[in-house]
Amino acid sequence: MEPAFSDTDRAAIYRAIDTRRDVRRGFIDRPLPDDLLRRLLTAAHKAPSVGFMQPSRFIVIRDLAIRKAVHGIFEQSRCEAAANYTGHQLEQYSALKLEGILEAPQNLCVVCDTGSERGHTLGRHSMPETAAYSTVCAVQNLWLAARAEGVGVGWVSILDPARLRAVLGIPDSMLPVAYLCLGYVDRFASQPELETYGWEKRVALESAISYDRYSEKIAGSNAP
Amino acid sequence: MEPAFSDTDRAAIYRAIDTRRDVRRGFIDRPLPDDLLRRLLTAAHKAPSVGFMQPSRFIVIRDLAIRKAVHGIFEQSRCEAAANYTGHQLEQYSALKLEGILEAPQNLCVVCDTGSERGHTLGRHSMPETAAYSTVCAVQNLWLAARAEGVGVGWVSILDPARLRAVLGIPDSMLPVAYLCLGYVDRFASQPELETYGWEKRVALESAISYDRYSEKIAGSNAP
Repeated sequence: MEPAFSDTDRAAIYRAIDTRRDVRRGFIDRPLPDDLLRRLLTAAHKAPSVGFMQPSRFIVIRDLAIRKAVHGIFEQSRCEAAANYTGHQLEQYSALKLEGILEAPQNLCVVCDTGSERGHTLGRHSMPETAAYSTVCAVQNLWLAARAEGVGVGWVSILDPARLRAVLGIPDSMLPVAYLCLGYVDRFASQPELETYGWEKRVALESAISYDRYSEKIAGSNAP
Repeated sequence: MEPAFSDTDRAAIYRAIDTRRDVRRGFIDRPLPDDLLRRLLTAAHKAPSVGFMQPSRFIVIRDLAIRKAVHGIFEQSRCEAAANYTGHQLEQYSALKLEGILEAPQNLCVVCDTGSERGHTLGRHSMPETAAYSTVCAVQNLWLAARAEGVGVGWVSILDPARLRAVLGIPDSMLPVAYLCLGYVDRFASQPELETYGWEKRVALESAISYDRYSEKIAGSNAP
């Protein structure tokens, strides 16, 4: 039988979880070695998937022209979203560094074959969205493995999916789930940048837990 | 500066990723200590979230009457999905063990405050689904931490969300993302049960990777 995880092993896992960051700056201009990239993709590929459908597909993007095209999409989507903000918040928004598409020597687009017959739709009858969720689990596996390898990962969601499909040739049957920037970094910030710059405050864990039934005491939306 | 992860640390993380399983059987009838459960929820709570919105809320379910009600929903949803199968596949489906709702001394429903104003919608303009994806990242963090703690986790998606909302009192503003069974186990299977029982074969990593653009060589849907 597999031996239990030692205290040191457990501590390593909690440390990866604690110190993982969404990295948007400080990428080193040195491509990741192929064997390292393969370890990261293997970690992603080993993620749980509903009905063992394994719907995640990985597009590794190193070509600068393609990254420039994706960066252009980001700029368009960033400007479109700017319409949501005014005053001080607009100033904050404009100053935030939200991606490292060109600085990170490799990008990774993770797509999901949501309509696949693999797994024979097991587990997707009541909750079809679990196909895409399986791909998100793959992203989080990769993110934690990357942290342990000294590799920064940033998830860019300010991208119009239709334009992204066009640039990367993603067919309609595949759902773009995550666009990631990957690269070595010298350091990981001690807290999320959006916390550091005052964009949003942290939720206390206590206010996120209830017992046996949903409780109104759980922190709900700040929406009016 | 944070020291780098040692080879041993990295190996622990890859081992958790390799040996994590979707556990549906073998739960030990001994509740998890509160401090352990709290470590797991802390790991979940530290997951990345779009715009630092932290939308995940956790309902810890130990009450047997509530677990029985959820198990009833599972049975209904399982029977509804049975209509998708015939012949040998129907026999296989009926024989699969797909949940441990009553055997696991605690269940955990993870819901997402998708409409929250927290994070000021940053990153959700182009891809609003990233709110729910943030909650999936929380689940995967918990899943890996649990593996290192010797705790089995099984994700039950064969549940009608409307009925689940009714039983757990989940308001319309909150999206049920994951229903998990959690408990100590004596052992973790060496491979996914759905692979062991021949429900589905494994995808080769090579067929899941393409470079710079989506490639038709990537394994697509098996659908006709």
